Amino acid sequence: MRGNVPEGRFTRPKLPLLDGALSCGSVTEVVLSESEALELSGVLAAISDPVRLRLLSIVAANAEVCSCDLEGPLARSQPTISHHTRVLSEAGLIIGEKRGRWVWWRIAPDRLGAVRRALGGS
Amino acid sequence: MRGNVPEGRFTRPKLPLLDGALSCGSVTEVVLSESEALELSGVLAAISDPVRLRLLSIVAANAEVCSCDLEGPLARSQPTISHHTRVLSEAGLIIGEKRGRWVWWRIAPDRLGAVRRALGGS
Repeated sequence: MRGNVPEGRFTRPKLPLLDGALSCGSVTEVVLSESEALELSGVLAAISDPVRLRLLSIVAANAEVCSCDLEGPLARSQPTISHHTRVLSEAGLIIGEKRGRWVWWRIAPDRLGAVRRALGGS
Repeated sequence: MRGNVPEGRFTRPKLPLLDGALSCGSVTEVVLSESEALELSGVLAAISDPVRLRLLSIVAANAEVCSCDLEGPLARSQPTISHHTRVLSEAGLIIGEKRGRWVWWRIAPDRLGAVRRALGGS
């Protein structure tokens, strides 16, 4: 990810934001169509990994976190961290901004909320 | 699954029920430990599949559903459906009861709610 984000620019999600296909009801309220299920499963796959869940909780616990500060807490190499931040970023769960050599990450507002609502939450 | 459940018996989840390790906070409230992240990722992996999400939504929309009635809506063979119901059942999301040749499935009360709370919901 370090080289994939232009200087000073924010990352953008590649997966749909759940607001469209799932706006008509959650998994506990309606029988999902194939496209709705595909959309939701993509975001769930991004968080169904223990390292990415820990990464997400670290970013959520801070206003923003530099990629350079994730190696220690996650006990992973920088290329591995880059892979996981890219997956979370493409799923729209975290937003990155490149400053100099590193990308700084913050939580995407209410993206997890959209996942919770799709799973039947309010 | 058809042959794995004793007659008249209910299936039992194999994954932890999230009530233990994650009782102290959600992914948005605390930095998850490795064991907490592993526990939650296991349940999320079970629902990060489009066929299982649709299956879950079909079971949730009914008081109970026979495995024999899932082939049509899911457009999958019975062995494939057995695989997916087993994954959801082991994750504690659905509960099966064998009656004669078939297993009847119902939604596990509040298991999705535990997942939502682990993701920061109330």
